Amino acid sequence: MTMPSGLTGLITLTTDFGLHDPFVGIMKGVILSINPEARLVDVAHQVKSFDVVDGALALIQSYPYFPSGTIHVVVVDPGVGSERRPILVATPTCHFVGPDNGVFSLVYERERAFEVRHVTVERYFLKPVSQTFHGRDIFAPVAAWLSTGLAPETFGGLITDYVQVPLMKPERISAGVTRGEVLRVDKFGNLITNFSPAHLPQQGRFRLVVKGYRVTRLVSSYAEGRGNGMVAIVGSTGFVEIAACQASAAEVLGAGKGTEIILETE
Amino acid sequence: MTMPSGLTGLITLTTDFGLHDPFVGIMKGVILSINPEARLVDVAHQVKSFDVVDGALALIQSYPYFPSGTIHVVVVDPGVGSERRPILVATPTCHFVGPDNGVFSLVYERERAFEVRHVTVERYFLKPVSQTFHGRDIFAPVAAWLSTGLAPETFGGLITDYVQVPLMKPERISAGVTRGEVLRVDKFGNLITNFSPAHLPQQGRFRLVVKGYRVTRLVSSYAEGRGNGMVAIVGSTGFVEIAACQASAAEVLGAGKGTEIILETE
Amino acid sequence: MTMPSGLTGLITLTTDFGLHDPFVGIMKGVILSINPEARLVDVAHQVKSFDVVDGALALIQSYPYFPSGTIHVVVVDPGVGSERRPILVATPTCHFVGPDNGVFSLVYERERAFEVRHVTVERYFLKPVSQTFHGRDIFAPVAAWLSTGLAPETFGGLITDYVQVPLMKPERISAGVTRGEVLRVDKFGNLITNFSPAHLPQQGRFRLVVKGYRVTRLVSSYAEGRGNGMVAIVGSTGFVEIAACQASAAEVLGAGKGTEIILETE
Repeated sequence: MTMPSGLTGLITLTTDFGLHDPFVGIMKGVILSINPEARLVDVAHQVKSFDVVDGALALIQSYPYFPSGTIHVVVVDPGVGSERRPILVATPTCHFVGPDNGVFSLVYERERAFEVRHVTVERYFLKPVSQTFHGRDIFAPVAAWLSTGLAPETFGGLITDYVQVPLMKPERISAGVTRGEVLRVDKFGNLITNFSPAHLPQQGRFRLVVKGYRVTRLVSSYAEGRGNGMVAIVGSTGFVEIAACQASAAEVLGAGKGTEIILETE
Repeated sequence: MTMPSGLTGLITLTTDFGLHDPFVGIMKGVILSINPEARLVDVAHQVKSFDVVDGALALIQSYPYFPSGTIHVVVVDPGVGSERRPILVATPTCHFVGPDNGVFSLVYERERAFEVRHVTVERYFLKPVSQTFHGRDIFAPVAAWLSTGLAPETFGGLITDYVQVPLMKPERISAGVTRGEVLRVDKFGNLITNFSPAHLPQQGRFRLVVKGYRVTRLVSSYAEGRGNGMVAIVGSTGFVEIAACQASAAEVLGAGKGTEIILETE
Repeated sequence: MTMPSGLTGLITLTTDFGLHDPFVGIMKGVILSINPEARLVDVAHQVKSFDVVDGALALIQSYPYFPSGTIHVVVVDPGVGSERRPILVATPTCHFVGPDNGVFSLVYERERAFEVRHVTVERYFLKPVSQTFHGRDIFAPVAAWLSTGLAPETFGGLITDYVQVPLMKPERISAGVTRGEVLRVDKFGNLITNFSPAHLPQQGRFRLVVKGYRVTRLVSSYAEGRGNGMVAIVGSTGFVEIAACQASAAEVLGAGKGTEIILETE
């Protein structure tokens, strides 16, 4: 398998560190101390604290848009300091560095070819390695060294028992009735569901029932929904979203992450 | 009219996307995939959702401080997916890319020479163009291609019927009485009004009445207002602000965006 | 004393400006207008408004991780427009630019050799200098000119009466009883105290009493604390933190900045 060179020097950061503390800035300092030519892009730092699935969603939504050779660092790491392994995932077009806790599960689902390595070569860590901030001590320096052109095999051996956390999939309850849920609420209050467009009938009517409210219209733009109550739309995530034009569907419906959604088709 | 070359590769981003979702990171990935040499600067991503005037204010406050040749991308886009046009505005010193919904109104007011083009050449879009995320599919790639040195005319023809949303101006009610309002509250709770310094008397007293509270002192620094209740000050926006030293005027007065302010002069 | 060249062009920004307004973006525009080659890294912009100690903590936590030659700009500036001086601090490895209000106090404590200069040479300011936004008009342009390779002495003369705000230190009350406090709550709700590891007994038991709750276990990772109530841990700041595994200690205990903590040793 041909692996990308990391020589573009582009490194993205996705964390649950928020922006209140200097954690992200510290990681950038570590990276630039190792590779002064690295170029850093923030993807998201407000992943829900300790929520591996939320981090996986932010990553799958964004990484396909970055150039070949980009290194994606993800630090959503409730198990920091425990036995969970640091890993490096290489696909034919990019690299991922982060904890082996399932945060790369959607990458494994999407990519046809990839290799996962247990990062063990401590020469590339920042010493002493703390038990509380592997973003600074392991993931940032490994990404930085990788961006200087070192090969993935430099950092550790292949593993096949990496952790996968399957995304909750919609579940068929009876003929024409499927139960799904809200995966995430975006900034505009749109409800990102776990229904994909394939769940909706190609022809014929459907109902998405959320908190007793029925959504029956599929539109192709938020603007189209104007003045017409709730609508369904295939959003930028690739999932079906429930939206209220220029209002927050989450607020109007009182819905949030985990809210049940029933899809009824004819 | 001589137009700036975009060859500095500097692109700024102003959006209402917030930082909770990876939308801004996705736009950066798209830009860097087209022009790996582009350099990206965030101006503001917490523009009030769908608020074109708020976006126009953030832009007018910041763009004059950027170097010649900078490309400013603005995505405050309640009409995404509707018939509103994507446009490219060129001035002698910089470029703007965004929706034709009035978000560039203050640029049109400030600049003496500019050209507005309807961006129509789809070759420079990211395909397929969604109906929900033109920041990713149109504005980011157009800015990126522009930053590689393509001329503005490459992207579409000139238009003159671009949308202008006039900023609410203070209104004279009677002799010596003018009604204005709060345009925006900044992070420190300062009330940015729509009064310009020219509205205040050069000599003689004035009163700004907000929520029944009378502000009569014009100071030149926040520090000068210390321990002296509310003061008026010409802030970094160029507008008259109402401030409480080391406290939030917005909280103390219970005022916010749209709050009426009466100016009384003698 | 040998001073670092600023030629790496790396400039970090730490402010209390938040991300709601375009203040930080404006500072970046000013810097890039003077030195188009400058590279900018955000450290933290959500320092508590006007809180010099909070800014000092964010800085001390992060600057040691940046490469030699980095320029650190800090704008937490309640006295903007008053007589407080703009200063430039040079150590053998990096530079600091900001107000002389104590925000660099922990730098003075940590560094063995440094020089402090009163920045007075107005040629390097952005004119006219406002009384409200020295981040834009003084600190950003001085840092930018410094990053082009100008020597610190170009900007003003040495001073020795710079302001120091001593960080609140734990206080011995009686034999085996020391009173400390919470300096800061991080994003995960961990309580960063002003106890250093040296305050804890090397052997023997201890109790940290917070809001009537007793913490008696010192662990080396957050994960180790799982399911075991509150724990103490030496966090990434170098101070003792009180943490609740995968929960917010601040919320559980109802504690926040300034909350008293009593350390009892045997």
